Amino acid sequence: MILTLAQIAQETQSKYIGEKGNLQITAASKLEEGKSGSLGFFANPKYEHLIYETQCSAVFVPLEFEAKQPVNCELLYHTNPYFAFCMVLTNHFNPNIHNQEVENQAYVHPTAVCKASYIGHFSYIDERAKIGANCIIYPGCYIGKDAVIGEHTVIYPNVVIYSKCEIGSNVIIHAGTVIGSDGFGFAPVNGKYVKIPQIGNVIVEDWVEIGSNCSIDRATMGSTVIKMGTKLDNLVQIAHNVEVGEHTVIASQTGIAGSTKVGGYSQFGGQCGIGGHLVIAPHTSAGGQAGITGNITTPHQKLTGTPATDVREFLKSVAGSRKVPDLMREIEGLKKEIHRISEEISSNKA
Amino acid sequence: MILTLAQIAQETQSKYIGEKGNLQITAASKLEEGKSGSLGFFANPKYEHLIYETQCSAVFVPLEFEAKQPVNCELLYHTNPYFAFCMVLTNHFNPNIHNQEVENQAYVHPTAVCKASYIGHFSYIDERAKIGANCIIYPGCYIGKDAVIGEHTVIYPNVVIYSKCEIGSNVIIHAGTVIGSDGFGFAPVNGKYVKIPQIGNVIVEDWVEIGSNCSIDRATMGSTVIKMGTKLDNLVQIAHNVEVGEHTVIASQTGIAGSTKVGGYSQFGGQCGIGGHLVIAPHTSAGGQAGITGNITTPHQKLTGTPATDVREFLKSVAGSRKVPDLMREIEGLKKEIHRISEEISSNKA
Amino acid sequence: MILTLAQIAQETQSKYIGEKGNLQITAASKLEEGKSGSLGFFANPKYEHLIYETQCSAVFVPLEFEAKQPVNCELLYHTNPYFAFCMVLTNHFNPNIHNQEVENQAYVHPTAVCKASYIGHFSYIDERAKIGANCIIYPGCYIGKDAVIGEHTVIYPNVVIYSKCEIGSNVIIHAGTVIGSDGFGFAPVNGKYVKIPQIGNVIVEDWVEIGSNCSIDRATMGSTVIKMGTKLDNLVQIAHNVEVGEHTVIASQTGIAGSTKVGGYSQFGGQCGIGGHLVIAPHTSAGGQAGITGNITTPHQKLTGTPATDVREFLKSVAGSRKVPDLMREIEGLKKEIHRISEEISSNKA
Repeated sequence: MILTLAQIAQETQSKYIGEKGNLQITAASKLEEGKSGSLGFFANPKYEHLIYETQCSAVFVPLEFEAKQPVNCELLYHTNPYFAFCMVLTNHFNPNIHNQEVENQAYVHPTAVCKASYIGHFSYIDERAKIGANCIIYPGCYIGKDAVIGEHTVIYPNVVIYSKCEIGSNVIIHAGTVIGSDGFGFAPVNGKYVKIPQIGNVIVEDWVEIGSNCSIDRATMGSTVIKMGTKLDNLVQIAHNVEVGEHTVIASQTGIAGSTKVGGYSQFGGQCGIGGHLVIAPHTSAGGQAGITGNITTPHQKLTGTPATDVREFLKSVAGSRKVPDLMREIEGLKKEIHRISEEISSNKA
Repeated sequence: MILTLAQIAQETQSKYIGEKGNLQITAASKLEEGKSGSLGFFANPKYEHLIYETQCSAVFVPLEFEAKQPVNCELLYHTNPYFAFCMVLTNHFNPNIHNQEVENQAYVHPTAVCKASYIGHFSYIDERAKIGANCIIYPGCYIGKDAVIGEHTVIYPNVVIYSKCEIGSNVIIHAGTVIGSDGFGFAPVNGKYVKIPQIGNVIVEDWVEIGSNCSIDRATMGSTVIKMGTKLDNLVQIAHNVEVGEHTVIASQTGIAGSTKVGGYSQFGGQCGIGGHLVIAPHTSAGGQAGITGNITTPHQKLTGTPATDVREFLKSVAGSRKVPDLMREIEGLKKEIHRISEEISSNKA
Repeated sequence: MILTLAQIAQETQSKYIGEKGNLQITAASKLEEGKSGSLGFFANPKYEHLIYETQCSAVFVPLEFEAKQPVNCELLYHTNPYFAFCMVLTNHFNPNIHNQEVENQAYVHPTAVCKASYIGHFSYIDERAKIGANCIIYPGCYIGKDAVIGEHTVIYPNVVIYSKCEIGSNVIIHAGTVIGSDGFGFAPVNGKYVKIPQIGNVIVEDWVEIGSNCSIDRATMGSTVIKMGTKLDNLVQIAHNVEVGEHTVIASQTGIAGSTKVGGYSQFGGQCGIGGHLVIAPHTSAGGQAGITGNITTPHQKLTGTPATDVREFLKSVAGSRKVPDLMREIEGLKKEIHRISEEISSNKA
């Protein structure tokens, strides 16, 4: 398929006033890595010099852009050049285009209902699993018994989805992630631990993206839930019976302990730890390595530190602890001064 | 197989005084999610209202339970309703029942000795590996050369066990976990790092459970050991030559550095870090994100913070650093007071 | 192949003055676990007693070693006994020896160029991937479209390498690691997140070793880079567009956020968090759980804590915050003293 400048201008609703509408675009790149045939974008004024130097054939620029030097590339004007660029990437440079095919070394159990576009070799679809239309299941995945996957979902290689888990539509799950492993539940009996069977499942709603090598445990009973539009980075841990609200972003290596409910529209930096059985208000924001140990009842708070507190409180506290040696010196000074005064009073008396 | 109320009462040694011993139980659920045919349990007095509302057909209740309102379900009396419920789950709702079968796309090397009940497609059992009776190896696993697995052990999909590692009986290993990767050992030579070969192994004793996406490294020489009955959550890191004592629980994303010995009956919250070459006394308990940087010689301590200290000390310390601004104000006040007194003495003299 | 003491002495350039050059060495072990036929080493004077007790047949010892008691093993003198021992391990006890073979249940796309020594069953080499000579690809791996792997590289089971990523020569990647998953990039649009396509790749240079279950994300555009000779432990997170300099060691569970450049010859303890868009000077050293939140401009610093500071500053700060209760008592004492003095002055006046 041939992609022309005119076609790109039309698709992205950008303004092209040049005369090379038939120019072919064959790649997308940063300005500084552009080659003949590649499309770029210019958004940050700090890098304006790059637009005069780039080898890209065409570049998205802001509507208000006015060249201060000659440019050697075609200009596509758009209110949001980066967004327009992303649209082109998504539509034309998507690596996940596959022919309609179940490869012959994939295993699909006879009772499974599989409408996927692609199932790679060495993937295993177990009994009664249901996979919707246009799904792409890369090689080496395991989809457990009675698991359900919606439509247009992409599962990268070596993902494991345990039995009964439900994955929505337009979900992306990166390689090595495990969904539905047993929750960490044991009853202490005479100093040993007896396993509490984990018979619930995991529900991942539509438009969620999950990074690589994450672990999301199934509920003891009921469901662990990742709501609509939420994005998880790599190596994230979600324990049993957790609910993560909609349109929340959770950076890498963060862990959420059992039964905690995280409100929607929240943001967590990397390596945060959130305790068990908590309720976190919507629109909560926590910095990297924050340790949240209690309920967060007021929305829109910005937290950091362990135990997590308001960012400004935390910084004061850090600054404070570093001033203690100064305070100790000041107190020593005061003691001497008081001693001197006492002596003086005594000598006055005498 | 049909499971009746009478059979459940007998198996769990619970007391049933109704007349519906032939009632069929087909599912297990929370009280609030019960349906006709399902079995539940009631343990926490806080949720007593649920027993009057549930759609469950039968419910385990404490021996001393007396209904304050009419109940619509059959009651099974037991000293520990949750424990009785778990027994039924384990015996009758276990998802890991498989026919005696090695699936035809599994690969078992001719020199391997494999008595497993089930080996899924795309699992690879390498040279001279030994797998005991009644083991279940899900699809996509790799069991290395000379590895040994006991009996009744369950290995979920895409687990990797490197050569020479030894896994006990009644062990559960969740998906994506890696056992026996090389310890992180390098010798600095002229500013570069030369790999120190890791020729030891990992020993996982009986009744251990390991979560998903964990990494347990083989010893440089000798063995990394996880002792009897210990439970590891997801994404846990165990470095080379570590020994974790018996009946210890380690929550998600905790890491233990090389050669550390952790005493039995200990508990670690999520995201703890334990330094290398340490000895941790038995019955140690550490809160989430604790960083243990020295030996713990006294058993039964409760630790938190980094560097980890006694929980009460840590809380005082956190509270303390937040009071520093107040202290600074107080010291300013004292200075002024002393200045005032000095002036007064001077004027008295004059 | 028979390995004799004379051969070992020659290969390692160690000095052997005994008469048993034909002695066969069949294993390598710690002194305390030695058996007849095994080779050990003695380096740490603290463990000198072991050399008098060991069952090893031969032991590397320092050039200056003089036995204070009778020894029952042959002695090989070397300036660096451990290094000599490692040489023998690497040359003769390497577990990664494979016949030239692509196993018949591996899948190699017809357009791939594969010169590997070994590709295990259930590994999938996708379109146009290139794998150099003497590579070993264990079972269950996925090598994406247009991915490139150099020579003498070892890829352990169930590793996933996404499309277009480039892995150097003499690289080791442990099981379950994922290279090239999408960077965590989303544009907020009306309270939802729109995926920013990640069209870059990952470049892993020669002599790098990466532990098990790591995640290294592909760049948004351009490349995420792990430079020559760097070593990553298990469960490490490297975000998109990060560059890690040469000969750097990064311990387990550390995470580096997007676009950060880490200078070469650095060292990071376990569970460190390094913020995004930072520049870290070469030869930086950070303790376990350090949280680096700003640029590090001076090389050779030793950092710890969150926000990370110089180790000595951090320890003072921790000590300081623990002294606050004492300071509060001292201030109370000073107040009383001042009050007493004031009273005394008043009574003097009177």
